Amino acid sequence: MEYIKNFDVRNGRNLTMLVDFYELTMGNGYLESEIGNRIAYFDMFFRKIPDDGGYCIMAGVQQLIEYLSNLKFSKDDIEYLKEKGDFSQKFLDYLENFNFSCDVWAIPEGNPVFPNEPLVTVRGPAIQAQFVETMILLTINHQTLIATKANRISKAADGRPVMEFGSRRAQGYDGAIYGARAAVIGGCSSTACTISEQMFGIPAVGTMAHSWVQLFPSEYESFKAWSKIYPDNCVLLIDTYNVLKSGLPNAIKAFNEVLLPMGKRPKGIRIDSGDITYLTKKCRQILDDAGFSDVKIVISNSLDEFIIRDVLSQGASIDSFGVGERLITAKSEPVFGGVYKLSAVEDENKNIIPKIKISENEGKITNPGFKNIYRIYDKKENKAIADLITLRDEKIDTNKPIEIFDPVFTWKKKKLKDYYVKELMVKIFNNGKLIYENPDVMTIRNIVKEETAKMWPEVLRFENPHTYYVDLSDKLWDLKQNLLHKYSQTYEE
Amino acid sequence: MEYIKNFDVRNGRNLTMLVDFYELTMGNGYLESEIGNRIAYFDMFFRKIPDDGGYCIMAGVQQLIEYLSNLKFSKDDIEYLKEKGDFSQKFLDYLENFNFSCDVWAIPEGNPVFPNEPLVTVRGPAIQAQFVETMILLTINHQTLIATKANRISKAADGRPVMEFGSRRAQGYDGAIYGARAAVIGGCSSTACTISEQMFGIPAVGTMAHSWVQLFPSEYESFKAWSKIYPDNCVLLIDTYNVLKSGLPNAIKAFNEVLLPMGKRPKGIRIDSGDITYLTKKCRQILDDAGFSDVKIVISNSLDEFIIRDVLSQGASIDSFGVGERLITAKSEPVFGGVYKLSAVEDENKNIIPKIKISENEGKITNPGFKNIYRIYDKKENKAIADLITLRDEKIDTNKPIEIFDPVFTWKKKKLKDYYVKELMVKIFNNGKLIYENPDVMTIRNIVKEETAKMWPEVLRFENPHTYYVDLSDKLWDLKQNLLHKYSQTYEE
Repeated sequence: MEYIKNFDVRNGRNLTMLVDFYELTMGNGYLESEIGNRIAYFDMFFRKIPDDGGYCIMAGVQQLIEYLSNLKFSKDDIEYLKEKGDFSQKFLDYLENFNFSCDVWAIPEGNPVFPNEPLVTVRGPAIQAQFVETMILLTINHQTLIATKANRISKAADGRPVMEFGSRRAQGYDGAIYGARAAVIGGCSSTACTISEQMFGIPAVGTMAHSWVQLFPSEYESFKAWSKIYPDNCVLLIDTYNVLKSGLPNAIKAFNEVLLPMGKRPKGIRIDSGDITYLTKKCRQILDDAGFSDVKIVISNSLDEFIIRDVLSQGASIDSFGVGERLITAKSEPVFGGVYKLSAVEDENKNIIPKIKISENEGKITNPGFKNIYRIYDKKENKAIADLITLRDEKIDTNKPIEIFDPVFTWKKKKLKDYYVKELMVKIFNNGKLIYENPDVMTIRNIVKEETAKMWPEVLRFENPHTYYVDLSDKLWDLKQNLLHKYSQTYEE
Repeated sequence: MEYIKNFDVRNGRNLTMLVDFYELTMGNGYLESEIGNRIAYFDMFFRKIPDDGGYCIMAGVQQLIEYLSNLKFSKDDIEYLKEKGDFSQKFLDYLENFNFSCDVWAIPEGNPVFPNEPLVTVRGPAIQAQFVETMILLTINHQTLIATKANRISKAADGRPVMEFGSRRAQGYDGAIYGARAAVIGGCSSTACTISEQMFGIPAVGTMAHSWVQLFPSEYESFKAWSKIYPDNCVLLIDTYNVLKSGLPNAIKAFNEVLLPMGKRPKGIRIDSGDITYLTKKCRQILDDAGFSDVKIVISNSLDEFIIRDVLSQGASIDSFGVGERLITAKSEPVFGGVYKLSAVEDENKNIIPKIKISENEGKITNPGFKNIYRIYDKKENKAIADLITLRDEKIDTNKPIEIFDPVFTWKKKKLKDYYVKELMVKIFNNGKLIYENPDVMTIRNIVKEETAKMWPEVLRFENPHTYYVDLSDKLWDLKQNLLHKYSQTYEE
């Protein structure tokens, strides 16, 4: 099915003014201080994997592209800002003629990503590179959070399809729409959110609610009516009254009396409440005995990766899952804490001057400079061993062995011989011009499958995973140490 | 400041297709089964207050109004649905000529609301009343969740302004935009989200990030530059390097050397990291000693109602709070579990036939029939005592005493004499036509203040609150019992 590209944009939606007000006060300040056009480098990265997991799944680049491609202040926007009174006419003129001219690099959607490596890097005039902070964070934080959660849930489902059912409990309309997109990227097979199929070409699915059953004089009559209308895709919700005493017998009766005479086979039954393990085992047995071993059992009741793992380990007989609120809000940890930090500036001669943000909390110290990331794979096993963050101009000669080391416990070293590398980041904007074509969602979903298959299972565990190495090159490590010693002033008590 | 009403709609955004696909398969099924135009009643209500709190704050009615006022399927939508192949031509024609004709009642935004009472009631053709389920839930669930969280946080701040700073960690763009709206309804004084001021007239505020400080040769020079540009609203972020050894001394130097000579007073300092209690006490003392007792201290580091209460109880010296991710995602409980259930249908003679959804979980049994809600206030204290859910045609004669009773433990009774009542729900759509003007956000914010002031403090506590009574009238209780006995079939083992 053809989907509608740039749906929001086509409909005239512009999110330029979805910006933290301080990006504007700072922008005005940069211009007034004559550093507005100084070239600055910012990295977007995160520090902690949600749910103490071992990896995240990058998502949201497409929406970032749409946002950056459409940065534009309307007359109303300028009027509004003028009325606020905080801004110089020079700044308002700048915004009115805003011409995005940054370079932007990003890790493509679908790749496993890890703490402290740049997911997005922006290079450009300080005023612009600062301005885009809010939307870069909002976009990547949200979709990466949901894609990661969806991947955990899909892994727990162990090959069984997972349908995203959460729109009604999402945090806002885009929470539903882009949440469905990210969920399918992460591994869901489909969504209940209709508009997300139109926008992204991801399959929208759905059958009936309890109200369907209640609106008929009896459960059986409601099943009979449904079977007649949807003989080719008949999934019946059997828990409105009593799964085993009423729902299942009525479903089997409708299958036998309506579908079979039409020459059709039923597709499934759905259970939305009660003890999943007990009920699905019983239903499977009864369906098999009634000659319906091809009928699938669908479950949809407050599920997440932990419940899915538990019921499957208890022998529940389930063919697919509908997952709602706990996926669409990433309920167990609903915040993805990506940050956007200055990493360098350029002087008048275009020399890159690295910047570091120090902190008494060591984990919050940033990696300075204009950087690159190499993912290093073991050639024999075709598994990723580590990510190596380097300075931008560093090349890796894969004919030579490489020694990587833990950036904190530097005596932890590893020498690699038979390896290959992949540059993780791609350039998506050059001087404000889009130069990258983002894959469609179903392609990204395949990237997730391929790239997670190259991760060791120990990293992918959703509890107590092995920590994947994100190391710094010698040059970057030295630079960071030097800056730390330089900036960490000695204060007298 | 004039704000832009119907911002999204004016920009061509239409959310008609943001709908769970099963609303469409059911709609098609209703039409095919010739019950599509049968009049049905649905209630939206919730069962549990997030965070084990004592109350929720109703929010989202304005966006519900905008959605219902603009229900419309485009040619593209019809084409897309046709291609899906699940729908009859009759149904597609119905959608193409969709003419919303429901009656809708809602509790106005800003009112405290409680479990099991209808927040929204829809009466109309089954096909339509079913269709709007997804967006009613999504809209009210999201904004009520955030307004409730914001009210808890504002209460903890005990009169100090709370600024909403969460856009970058919100779940999608609308999570930020409408989250900011709901946060201000709940009690926040302002937001960092610029577009939300344009859309709703709520104040957008902001000053500087650490990157401002880093982009200058020194912290002092960055403060000097800021003070010159914003002499009338100078708030300096003082934790980029070291609050007490560097940030505060540099801020005081800038105040003395730049602002005072301009005849200006500084407005504040902001701290975004470190031990809040210790640092704010120290800063207050140093500011006072330096002649800046009028300078406010702003705090903004992973705050919620619990941390705010703790630091204030420890004597932290704070004048206002910026609250981010824990508010905008309602992190401690990010799901508001509103549901939408069939409560009645009409027969050919317009008799209302109540419907009940039974469940083995007693808490999930619905209240049947077409209902009304009265809030009963003690006249002398002017405090709300209980909400009484009645059948729609029941009137309360406030000249007579009224006896209310617990719907489960019916021996718990209370006789009220000196009371007055308020009907909670208002009709917002009549036969598909909007007949209600929603107040603007700042007015709703005042309604929250007034209406929570009429709640006993014990109900408003954010831990271990007193349970507010939501009782059923005699008639409704009897009806429910009768239906329960009728529907609870006896199954043979």
